[in-house]
Amino acid sequence: MSDPYIPRPEDKFSFGLWTVGNRGRDPFGDVVRDTLPPNDAVALLGEVGAWGVNLHDNDLVPIDATPVDRDRIVKEFGRACERHHIVVPMATVNLFFDPVFRDGAFTANDPRVRSYALQKTMGAMDLGAELGAKTFVLWGGREGAETDAARRADEAVKRLRDAVNYLCEYSIDRQYGYRFALEAKPNEPRGDIYMATTGAYLGFIPTLDHPEMVGVNPEVAHEHMAGLNFLHAVAQAWEAGKLFHIDLNDQYPGRYDQDFRFGSANVKAAFWLVKFLEDVGYSGPRHFDAHAYRTEDYDGVKDFARGCMRTYLILRDRAKRWNADREIQALAAETAAERPTYSTQHRDRLLATTFNRAEIAKKGLAYERLDQLTMEILLGVR
Amino acid sequence: MSDPYIPRPEDKFSFGLWTVGNRGRDPFGDVVRDTLPPNDAVALLGEVGAWGVNLHDNDLVPIDATPVDRDRIVKEFGRACERHHIVVPMATVNLFFDPVFRDGAFTANDPRVRSYALQKTMGAMDLGAELGAKTFVLWGGREGAETDAARRADEAVKRLRDAVNYLCEYSIDRQYGYRFALEAKPNEPRGDIYMATTGAYLGFIPTLDHPEMVGVNPEVAHEHMAGLNFLHAVAQAWEAGKLFHIDLNDQYPGRYDQDFRFGSANVKAAFWLVKFLEDVGYSGPRHFDAHAYRTEDYDGVKDFARGCMRTYLILRDRAKRWNADREIQALAAETAAERPTYSTQHRDRLLATTFNRAEIAKKGLAYERLDQLTMEILLGVR
Amino acid sequence: MSDPYIPRPEDKFSFGLWTVGNRGRDPFGDVVRDTLPPNDAVALLGEVGAWGVNLHDNDLVPIDATPVDRDRIVKEFGRACERHHIVVPMATVNLFFDPVFRDGAFTANDPRVRSYALQKTMGAMDLGAELGAKTFVLWGGREGAETDAARRADEAVKRLRDAVNYLCEYSIDRQYGYRFALEAKPNEPRGDIYMATTGAYLGFIPTLDHPEMVGVNPEVAHEHMAGLNFLHAVAQAWEAGKLFHIDLNDQYPGRYDQDFRFGSANVKAAFWLVKFLEDVGYSGPRHFDAHAYRTEDYDGVKDFARGCMRTYLILRDRAKRWNADREIQALAAETAAERPTYSTQHRDRLLATTFNRAEIAKKGLAYERLDQLTMEILLGVR
Amino acid sequence: MSDPYIPRPEDKFSFGLWTVGNRGRDPFGDVVRDTLPPNDAVALLGEVGAWGVNLHDNDLVPIDATPVDRDRIVKEFGRACERHHIVVPMATVNLFFDPVFRDGAFTANDPRVRSYALQKTMGAMDLGAELGAKTFVLWGGREGAETDAARRADEAVKRLRDAVNYLCEYSIDRQYGYRFALEAKPNEPRGDIYMATTGAYLGFIPTLDHPEMVGVNPEVAHEHMAGLNFLHAVAQAWEAGKLFHIDLNDQYPGRYDQDFRFGSANVKAAFWLVKFLEDVGYSGPRHFDAHAYRTEDYDGVKDFARGCMRTYLILRDRAKRWNADREIQALAAETAAERPTYSTQHRDRLLATTFNRAEIAKKGLAYERLDQLTMEILLGVR
Repeated sequence: MSDPYIPRPEDKFSFGLWTVGNRGRDPFGDVVRDTLPPNDAVALLGEVGAWGVNLHDNDLVPIDATPVDRDRIVKEFGRACERHHIVVPMATVNLFFDPVFRDGAFTANDPRVRSYALQKTMGAMDLGAELGAKTFVLWGGREGAETDAARRADEAVKRLRDAVNYLCEYSIDRQYGYRFALEAKPNEPRGDIYMATTGAYLGFIPTLDHPEMVGVNPEVAHEHMAGLNFLHAVAQAWEAGKLFHIDLNDQYPGRYDQDFRFGSANVKAAFWLVKFLEDVGYSGPRHFDAHAYRTEDYDGVKDFARGCMRTYLILRDRAKRWNADREIQALAAETAAERPTYSTQHRDRLLATTFNRAEIAKKGLAYERLDQLTMEILLGVR
Repeated sequence: MSDPYIPRPEDKFSFGLWTVGNRGRDPFGDVVRDTLPPNDAVALLGEVGAWGVNLHDNDLVPIDATPVDRDRIVKEFGRACERHHIVVPMATVNLFFDPVFRDGAFTANDPRVRSYALQKTMGAMDLGAELGAKTFVLWGGREGAETDAARRADEAVKRLRDAVNYLCEYSIDRQYGYRFALEAKPNEPRGDIYMATTGAYLGFIPTLDHPEMVGVNPEVAHEHMAGLNFLHAVAQAWEAGKLFHIDLNDQYPGRYDQDFRFGSANVKAAFWLVKFLEDVGYSGPRHFDAHAYRTEDYDGVKDFARGCMRTYLILRDRAKRWNADREIQALAAETAAERPTYSTQHRDRLLATTFNRAEIAKKGLAYERLDQLTMEILLGVR
Repeated sequence: MSDPYIPRPEDKFSFGLWTVGNRGRDPFGDVVRDTLPPNDAVALLGEVGAWGVNLHDNDLVPIDATPVDRDRIVKEFGRACERHHIVVPMATVNLFFDPVFRDGAFTANDPRVRSYALQKTMGAMDLGAELGAKTFVLWGGREGAETDAARRADEAVKRLRDAVNYLCEYSIDRQYGYRFALEAKPNEPRGDIYMATTGAYLGFIPTLDHPEMVGVNPEVAHEHMAGLNFLHAVAQAWEAGKLFHIDLNDQYPGRYDQDFRFGSANVKAAFWLVKFLEDVGYSGPRHFDAHAYRTEDYDGVKDFARGCMRTYLILRDRAKRWNADREIQALAAETAAERPTYSTQHRDRLLATTFNRAEIAKKGLAYERLDQLTMEILLGVR
Repeated sequence: MSDPYIPRPEDKFSFGLWTVGNRGRDPFGDVVRDTLPPNDAVALLGEVGAWGVNLHDNDLVPIDATPVDRDRIVKEFGRACERHHIVVPMATVNLFFDPVFRDGAFTANDPRVRSYALQKTMGAMDLGAELGAKTFVLWGGREGAETDAARRADEAVKRLRDAVNYLCEYSIDRQYGYRFALEAKPNEPRGDIYMATTGAYLGFIPTLDHPEMVGVNPEVAHEHMAGLNFLHAVAQAWEAGKLFHIDLNDQYPGRYDQDFRFGSANVKAAFWLVKFLEDVGYSGPRHFDAHAYRTEDYDGVKDFARGCMRTYLILRDRAKRWNADREIQALAAETAAERPTYSTQHRDRLLATTFNRAEIAKKGLAYERLDQLTMEILLGVR
């Protein structure tokens, strides 16, 4: 019998160049793995069965590359992608590594930095478009502060809006057809980051000039850092038609950004997430924004990448079982009810209704049973 | 010389009936203070110098009161307010205490509960309107789950929308002129609460039928529970024209809902908040949603209430000093810069610009100095 | 084929009276379940297959019971235990519910409270001894502060030491043969609780008059509240010979005390814990200090209790599989190495050794693979 | 009038070479400041008014330096210290930066790593002794795991004990007269770090061969990361005679390791800490283990260093005012009470006492007032 947990292209599993290429540097330690050239990263992704690769501009093209070098690098990369049957669904821009961004990019106090950030992003959009990307992610990793003396927080919102509006126009102008996906994070590397949660971006988007072009890119680890329920953020984004991309990984709450293998920290949360994405028919990439432990060599990096996809597929299978389980379905079934629509008649009828609170409150809701059955589905004993 | 930190009516300090009336019950312990009748609470608020009082329906009127009793209670309460020169700027509804709401109110799986929640809220709106309230707060304390098996999280969003839409129509219909202020919280008393952050509500509001009637009521403790920067949430709300109300208190991150005296846990965060509210000219109530320690008698409750207001006034004074400090102003001054507006000319000019990253990155930004000066203003040594 | 996950007496599963008897009161809501009389709780525990029941003094005997009532209640309870084949392995004392303890018990500023706490604890020890308990748990739920102005934190340590020393003498004097198990918690219901972690108690015990009589009672939720790795605390306690008891439940980090069903929040952490307890041969009770969701009736309470035990047994089975898995064992195998013992010869040899750091650092450690295999064991696909 | 907040040698303010020399590298960004040579760092510390400098071996001597280079470097550094009147009170060892330590040092699975870690530490002890250090700090930054599959957590404790025992013997053997100070941290850079809290080390020390030689080095940020009350950990350590050193900085709970300027995140917690250290007469170094924001140049680094000391001195002054405030002293005064010592007479007397719980519980404890007065002392309005 064949292994049911082998990734296939239609699963749309993608990885960032920076994920399998992560060299293990951390605040207290040096790099532990050799540089993985982008083309080798693509080969590695092909080998483990991925479908797509995503990139920041400087994951591929050095920040000071000449136009000639840039074109050669991009061309060779495109060929490597073709050779290994890897697509480039998403591109993004690195607005955080270079010291010029130490006070932010679009929200920096120095207007030259803000201008440079726009310029750099336009270049990254050109690059992504050339490689076929249709989604452009903006993660404002340095858009924040260690002290709120640095700038008024509402001014930061305005600056961010200016930048996104500008970039939307650029995409329209160049006919790139991008959909922007904004990625929130509460803190790290800044003391606080503006737009701390996916919700904050969902509130920001309707204030833009082209809200229809902009959605969100929620990341498991970024909501878990603040101890928030990731599924709830994803569901709100989906319901609003704004789930343009998703970053899968894992993270213990209240800690540094861990970017662990998908499902390895909180597999139950991962289960509800996979179930949701599959149940609603999310058709975008399943992008893993994670990296291997620092204890690993490149064989370990492959184990890591395979593990991300394999766990997703196991959980997808579990979600199907959950949906097919009769006892679960009986417990989960909800009484059909009309949605309340206001009218004076409806109002009067409602105001005249007598509710027997005590009787309603007496009935057990069997959520302990439902959750325990979920655990047993998850653990494979049901 | 008169004490500059005495509250005055124009400071618009308000307290909930449930705050000074909190009896000290907690998950591990019984009540420690006698019941404080609403009219006595109003007297207490008058005595300590507050301007307003807010209330849940059942803070004043028992859940099973007859219409006759209800009218008598409301009338007497109105008189007490007049007697003590206390206004009622905000009203809200208790959708969390009664066992009928153990699975939520507007999002409960049982449609009878959802209907009852609407009915009860309409009653609370009637009550608030009768007492002169112009803001109606909705805090969905039970709108959540311990297990995501209970319902689909996007279904919860839809149910919540239905309810808010319905209540907006009711307010229009009755000509109450309410502005609704939605209050987020990440968890407790539910395992997770839907709409975990102020940002989530800012994303939700534009999807309503009457977005112009609905804003947010951010609460210090509720964002701090998730370790988020409260000021940033408030600033985003303000910038979006959605800061309809505010709940002031204090809280250590990553803990149970503490509702401590304003400024007593993180006075620096409180300082930035007060400075922001004063700088932007927020003119709504400064509402304290906090309560006295369980170690206190009613003298301690007064100490608590006085402390909330006094700390606000001290911080307001400190904010003025910050704004007037020349060294601070010199450090904080930002280079004026045009907002970038997209045009092909602007684009071309920007793309043709050369930025000297190294030179830009070399300049120290003096935020350590700026923050230390802030600390010294705060500590009163400057 | 029989169900392998049915609890048996030799599994030593125990529940507190307060767990299955929890009525669902929380800071924002009223009780939702009727009182469960202690003797009915014992019957319920017998029905679901538990082995033991634990109790606070006032779970069984009202705080103001007369000696005659007390004796009758205890006698009847003993009979109920016999009838349902339930033992009483552990007893404890409620030093947190009554308002007299609002500022702590053994560490309260009022010396009368400290004295009363000792007296009450002696009574609880008498009660436990009468019912056959050999372990006495001390959880200082109110031993803390909302403000560190209340008392010097080192004075609190001294007062706690005085109390434990006194109670050890009492146990010796009465020949009760108790082992005391101290239970840490970081906060809630107090702003902070002294002795915040299991580690703090491990540091406290060696300073007692009878350290050999005193160990710890680590609780999953209490370490998880602070985001700490519970297994590490348990392992340190075990290695020091101090794991006298254990409280099993579950909890998301950085939140209110949730006391969820064992394994339902972080099943991977629960897996490592069960594996450790089984691997080292821990022979004490597996005590569940948790309670059913507030959405449940008493059928749901039974589902909850059965779920705790069932998940433990599933995880025990998974741990056996892990231990028997050849690939895992090959990866986990460690090179045997002598323990370093200091001597001038050893020192000189060590100082003269040359280490090839680069070579040592090159080898991948395959922890990604090891962890992924663990996930697959856990999820039942291996 | 002279500035009362100028640091003096008797204040014993020390900084690590790595603190003022921090170059601003973080997980998402490159270095932003040039290398600060150790001798220049000493000059900088002299300029800002520090008393001491601490160092890891490799802060001063490169990991692969020849003995000749090493001796020259150390000699020149000693001279620089003399020239700037800076002492070296503490030394430590870097067991985390080099890739060889990616799986830990003393607890690594590879016995060669464990041996190398011992060898390297002995070298660092030689270095510290040569420079006059009397305290040797051990921070096991890599002693942890991302997956508990890596090793048994109790085995890690044993390995750690072996190492500390060995190093104690080495200190005795060489007559260095060191006192070891163990520094806990819950996580980062590892997923979890063994010995997560100061309490864990207080429990570990009594199990060593030479417990009298070993104490703790609590760090504000490391306890705050887990949301714990730092003062309580320090007080327990002090009361046990184990406060051998202290690391001052600041940190918001539940985040990455921030190492902010002392007092800049939670100034109230810093106040209680300073008050405690001064009240009990702690006479060791006040060591700042923090670094400047990444937005700063070396002028900003000086601002940072000056700010740490200045805030300490302001808070020390505030603590004196608190102690001298009559209203505070009246509120804080505790009834004198004998410590309870067990005897059959005392027991009988205690058991025969009747306590009037209701009456005791009625009295307000005025902690709200006491805490508000503390705030007003802190804010300089009293």
